[in-house]
This record gives sequence, C-alpha cells and structure tokens, in this order.
Amino acid sequence: MMLQNTSSSLIETLRHRRQRLASLINFPAILWSGSSNPRNFPANRFPFRASSNFLYFAGFPLPNAVIRLEAGKLELFMDDPQPGSALWHGEMPKREEIAQKIGADAARPMAELESWVENAATIAVQDAATWTQQSQLLNRWVLPQNPPQGIDLELTKAIASLRLVHDEEALVELRKAAAVSVEAHIAGMAATPNSRREAEVRAAMEGVIIAHNMTTAYNSIVTVHGEVLHNEQYHHSLQPGDLLLADVGAETTMGWAADITRTWPVSGKFSSTQRDIYHVVLAAHDACIAKIYPGVEYREIHLLAANAIAEGLADLGILQGNPQDLVEIDAHALFFPHGIGHLLGLDVHDMEDLGDLAGYEEGRKRSDRFGLGYLRLNRPLRPGMLVTIEPGFYQVPAILNDPQLRSKYQNVVNWERLSEFADVRGIRIEDDVLVTATGREVLTAALPNDANTIEDLVGG
Amino acid sequence: MMLQNTSSSLIETLRHRRQRLASLINFPAILWSGSSNPRNFPANRFPFRASSNFLYFAGFPLPNAVIRLEAGKLELFMDDPQPGSALWHGEMPKREEIAQKIGADAARPMAELESWVENAATIAVQDAATWTQQSQLLNRWVLPQNPPQGIDLELTKAIASLRLVHDEEALVELRKAAAVSVEAHIAGMAATPNSRREAEVRAAMEGVIIAHNMTTAYNSIVTVHGEVLHNEQYHHSLQPGDLLLADVGAETTMGWAADITRTWPVSGKFSSTQRDIYHVVLAAHDACIAKIYPGVEYREIHLLAANAIAEGLADLGILQGNPQDLVEIDAHALFFPHGIGHLLGLDVHDMEDLGDLAGYEEGRKRSDRFGLGYLRLNRPLRPGMLVTIEPGFYQVPAILNDPQLRSKYQNVVNWERLSEFADVRGIRIEDDVLVTATGREVLTAALPNDANTIEDLVGG
Repeated sequence: MMLQNTSSSLIETLRHRRQRLASLINFPAILWSGSSNPRNFPANRFPFRASSNFLYFAGFPLPNAVIRLEAGKLELFMDDPQPGSALWHGEMPKREEIAQKIGADAARPMAELESWVENAATIAVQDAATWTQQSQLLNRWVLPQNPPQGIDLELTKAIASLRLVHDEEALVELRKAAAVSVEAHIAGMAATPNSRREAEVRAAMEGVIIAHNMTTAYNSIVTVHGEVLHNEQYHHSLQPGDLLLADVGAETTMGWAADITRTWPVSGKFSSTQRDIYHVVLAAHDACIAKIYPGVEYREIHLLAANAIAEGLADLGILQGNPQDLVEIDAHALFFPHGIGHLLGLDVHDMEDLGDLAGYEEGRKRSDRFGLGYLRLNRPLRPGMLVTIEPGFYQVPAILNDPQLRSKYQNVVNWERLSEFADVRGIRIEDDVLVTATGREVLTAALPNDANTIEDLVGG
Repeated sequence: MMLQNTSSSLIETLRHRRQRLASLINFPAILWSGSSNPRNFPANRFPFRASSNFLYFAGFPLPNAVIRLEAGKLELFMDDPQPGSALWHGEMPKREEIAQKIGADAARPMAELESWVENAATIAVQDAATWTQQSQLLNRWVLPQNPPQGIDLELTKAIASLRLVHDEEALVELRKAAAVSVEAHIAGMAATPNSRREAEVRAAMEGVIIAHNMTTAYNSIVTVHGEVLHNEQYHHSLQPGDLLLADVGAETTMGWAADITRTWPVSGKFSSTQRDIYHVVLAAHDACIAKIYPGVEYREIHLLAANAIAEGLADLGILQGNPQDLVEIDAHALFFPHGIGHLLGLDVHDMEDLGDLAGYEEGRKRSDRFGLGYLRLNRPLRPGMLVTIEPGFYQVPAILNDPQLRSKYQNVVNWERLSEFADVRGIRIEDDVLVTATGREVLTAALPNDANTIEDLVGG
C-alpha cells in the first residue's frame, strides 16, 4: 500500500468523479478493491491489483477495502492492520489516515459494511475471494462472468460513461505510464544487438519499468514470432534476419496503463521485404492517427486501416484488386485479423471487465464479419478518450493454411508473390492517442516509429 | 506451455517418483495443475503457476490439466487447444504429444475425468476456480485452507515424504535456480552505486532473472528498511549510510526455487557499527552451516544461531548476560525474531501449502515461545533435504518499542549501547544448503558473503 504519491489535487478529483456519478444514479454504489491471489501457497501471493472501478473513485490501490458512494459522499470500509503485522509488513497507514488522504466523508471497519448494503449496486471484482464476499453481502450472485442487471447495470453504464473520458488527474498518470513505456522500448532496441534470446530483450524493457517502481500493464509480448498475436513465450533465440515484435506497456502505481508496440530488425537493418511491409503498416498507422477527431466513428478508423493495408499490399502485388473491394470481402483480415485498437485507461483494454458496455455505443453489437468481429471499440470519438492505434501485418499459419480461407481468397492473393515476404512473420506499430477538442495528441509520440530512426536506435 | 526443456532423464524421474508414491499409498491420487487468475479483466491474467504437487509428478507447468496416479501409472487429462486459439497463442502441443513427453500411460480429454475419480485422494490447489472443480468432481469440500483428512491426509503425508528429499532431476533444476539467483545478486550489488532508489536495484536483479527466462520464486525484498521483514515496497531513495537488504530468488521454468539474501552498504563501505553486526550475523550463519549433517535436528541449528547471535551481541555490549541464559529467555528474538530457515524445493517455503505436515516431524507442534514460534522446520536433517540458513539482526520498532517486551528485557539490553547501532536497521544473510551423506553442500556458495568481498562487488 503506497500513499507517498499523493498529488494535492487528488482529493478534488475524486470528489469531482463521485459527484458526477451522483448526477447519473440515485442509489448507493459499493465498490470492492479485491484481494491478492495465492500463488503456490497461501503466504506466497501474486502482486495485488485493485479493481479499476475501485481505483477510479478511491485513487489508491488499497487491498481488501470497500468504498460506498452515495450522493457524492465517500465512505471507506477497511480494517486496520492486525496487531503484529508491523513485524512483517512495517507500520502501515491506518484507516483514518487513508480516509483523510482520499477525502472520505467517513471511515468504518469492514464489519460495519453489512449495515450499509441496502439497495446498493456493485460491479463484480475479478478475484473469487472477493466476488464471493460481494455475493454474500448483497445476497445475490455477483459474478465477473455474468452480465450485470438492474441497478448493477445502471451503475456499470454510469461508471463506463465517466471513465470513457479522462480527466486531468488521469492524464497525468497516463502520461507517466507512456513516458516510462517509451523508455522501455528504447532500452529494448538498444539491448537487441547484445541479446541472444527474446528473454534478454524483455529483461531490458521490463527492467526500465521495474526501475521506475511501476509494473507491466499486461504480460509483455517480446517475440520473433509476432505472427502469434498473444505470444507470451520468450525462449526463442534471435537470428540476424528476424524481426522482433515488442508489445510492452507500463502501469503506474495508481493503476494507469500504457500500451506500445514496436517492431524492429534484430540485425539493426530491415531487409527490403521487411521494409516494404513495415511501410505499409506505418502508412496505415499514420493515416488512422491523422483521421482522429471528435465525432469520428472509431469503426471508420478501423476501416481506414483495413483500406490502407489492402492498398499497400495491392501495391506490393500481394493482394490483387481494388482496395475498397478487397476490404469489403475482408481480404485485409487475412493479414490484419484484429481490430485497429481499443480504449486505454486504468485497464489496458479499458473496462473490458464490463464486456462491451464500455467499448460499444448503446444498441451496437459485435459484427460477425471476419474483418470486424475483433473490433473492441465502436463509438464516436470524444475529447478525452484515449485509444490505441495498432495496425499490423501477420502471416498466421492458422489463417493462411486454412483450406476454407485459402479457397475463398484463392484469386485475390498472389501466393507466389507472398512467398517472397517469408521473412515478415509479424509487424505491429501501436501508439496511444488522446482525442482532443481539435483533433488528437499522441501520448507516445516520443518513441520514433519511422524505419530509419528505429534502425539507428537498434544500432548493431 | 513450454516443452522445449525436456531432459532425457525426465520421463525416468517422473516414473520413479510415481512408483515411490505407489509404494506408500494403495488408492489413486488425482492432482490438478490449476489455472491462471484474472487480473483486472478476464483476458488480462496473472502468469500461470502450476501447483507444485502437480509439477512434481507431471514435470511441466500445463495449465488446466489433471494427472491421475495409480499403482505407478500416470494418466493425463487435458483438452486440446480450442480451434482458433492458434491465431492468438500459436500452435500449442496436443495432449498426445505432451503425454509422450512426460511418459504418461494414457491421455484423455478432461470430460472423461469424472469417470475416474472414484476413491481418489487429492490435494487442494490454491486458485478458487480449480478447488471449486476439485470439490465438485470429488463431491466433497477440497479447500486450500482446510487441513486434509482421510485419504487426502494419507496422500499429503506420502507426497511430503517424497518431496522432502530431492532426487537428481530436482537438484539439476535447483542448481540452475541458485546460479541465476547468484548472478542476480551480483548484478544488484554492481548496480547500487548508480541507483537512486530501491526500485532500480530491484530492476537490475530481476532483469537477470527475466533474461534467463525465469521468474522470481517470490515477491522480491529489496529495501533499505530491512527491519520490515516482508517489505515489498521499493520506493525509498538510497542514502550513502544505508544498508540495502535484498532477498531475491529465481524459479526455473519447471518451477524449482532458490532463495538468497545478502545485505550490502549503499556506499560500498560498511560503517564500523554495520560491520560489527554484519560479523555477528555471518558468524551465526557460518556456525549453522558447519553444523549441518544428516541426523542433526534443524531445531538445534536454529538454537545454535540464536546462541551465536546472543553471544555476538553480548560481546558488542548490546545484550548483557550469558548467551545460553539469554537464549533461554528468548532475548535473541528481540533482534532475530524469525526462524533460522525453511525447506526449499518447488516452493520457496517448500510444501507450506500442506501446513506443517512437511515442515514438522509427525507428532511435533509449533512452540509458543517468542523465540521458536516462527520456526518453519522441525525435523532431523536427511541427505537430499535442501534448507535455507538465514540468520538476521533487525531493529524492529514494533518489537523494541513494545512496552511489555521492553520491560521484560529491561535489564538484559543495554539500550544506550544499542542506540550507537542506529545505522543497522536490518541485516540478513541467507544461503541454500543441501544436506549430503557426509555433511552439506551450499548451492549458493558462488555468491560471496564476507564483508570485504561484498564491498568490492558493490564498488562505488
């Protein structure tokens, strides 16, 4: 539990957040922080990660704590440290001290919570020990996998609408996470020529994050097999002709995330085929970012990326046909099978614990199209929203060798031409983009993405 | 899931382990590997850590898998990857492939497990999703916090008796973990002069572990406040007069742990008071290790440490009285309030998920003495047992300012003399010691612990 990071404006921000919540709902909300999960035995635990919905209103990652929000008031429920815990954990701040730091209107021991649950809505926390507590106290099933109903649904929608648009306090944290993630990527590039394995590059990158006393916002991807989208293995050796794809982001102590991907040549030099495809992905990336304005539909940004990739691949002779026609039949998705990005905030896929309630505008549903089904965000952009833009090109064997897909796209792919690009297994370029009143600001802009500068940063 | 580390002898070792189990029990055993815990949303998960009891017999950390052991036979239950998972996770090994790698006698989909549970014993896994499954399938509560009963108790005792004594395959892994941990500590020392905060030293140390594609076996302690025994905060700045205490250990991909503590001066030079106490702790450490032989009671080793610390502190004028008398009234525990060490193996506190069934010889119970209650191991030593030896000296405010303790020990502590040692908040020296047929082998001996060499390694 770390309270040393208090900013003088935090109390004001937290008050403002709960007042805005109070303007949206007319019933109390009770939010649990959660508890740490045991790893291989009870005393050896995974690091604690507070629920993001709790963090948004309580500011600090307090384990085993609960806040009750009603009409703009904040009540903190938590127990003081056990006597004797000071030997093992040092002097911890007491409930009253914490209550003061976060501007709580009251502070009570956990045992009193049961008297305050009437008519209260909640949101399920991920860890089982906590959602069991939630279910018991509220006398109904509160399960992370169940879609919320009734007042829980109303609360979820209200919180999603607040968290969609970041306030200044959030942006301060998000910029910190971005800055450290940029530093991590630069360290990863610089470490590559002296690394023999993916794990060594990962170490250089996560070392920067740990040194800043932050944690990774998600399990890092640092791989020469970028065609495996969620590759969490780091054992491959680095070969001179490989591209290394690194998707690594920091999370601040207050829980705010960054999410950056860069792809660089292990040798410090892109091959001509790698450079060609890199330029296709970068062109898509730049086109998407240039198009970000308030009011623009994120789905349009996705389709713009699809179009740019189809166009680039057609120019290279890999796809055959008119780009717009290719996108209409989802041919781009053979090589770009995921969405152009997602919301970013306290979660790396912000509010994904709420299902599509945050990502999808009310009334919209996921498409079942091959090229749109993985789109995680489908809303018009608004100032204060933070999104990732992450186009990619991948040669996924499970897609390209799929007999059905292969026959469907037999005539739009020049398979022979494609075979010349065998040294391009996976490329992704991802930045974090804040929608502003007049357009956009790339929070991760300090990290270069043009091929020449990337080559310089890798050296070798 | 990583299968690339197969050693040719693994299949033989696993067979030998289950044959030995078969000689101890006459009913089937079913062991679950467990599943990963969600972090802030379902798709963002903590790293998977397989249950150690599963790992001991299955070798590999297979998520969501089950093994059934009966009469020396091994049956593997797990599902093949979902169609479509290759896009996100790459081609994963299939059940049959894994079964071959671990020498399983049969391999079945998970759905068949329910036909194979009759009269079977099990051990609760830590994650709630899995112990819920265990309870449902076996139709009884299998909870990690409940002491095992009936055949579950018999199985637990049998497995504990096997895991107490390490075989060659285990030792190969334990030596790897030790070697990487040694390297991490040397990197931490070298990084100290250029570090401003604890977190930066931690980064240097964990960076080594990550670079070797290993993980930490427990949450690292890297702190200038070593008097907080389980300090998991890393935000303090480093001051020239500080001692830095680092308790950091690696865990191999197969799950085997190391556990090392060193304490070094931030400036590269111990003050004379720091050096004096360091020598007291080192003398206790060396005396304990020299005394490790088969047949020796670990409790005696603990008391030897208590005695050496009492004697050293009496020599320095901090304690007053005869060392043996001081230990009898637990005066040493004012400064050395924990046990001399614990078992080490697949868990850093090996088999602590089994309560004291592994640590305590049958019929023995924890002492309620201030100076003995935290002793985690109370058995006669046997060849093949691996234990930590980790004496320490701490000035814990919660102990030294406790009015009851202060009055009880008013006359045995020279409080004025003690105040001269204010720059020694916490020192611990910890090594991993294998009991051999003729004495002992220190697996972590490559890491120096004498004050002069430590100073040289820090430099500065």
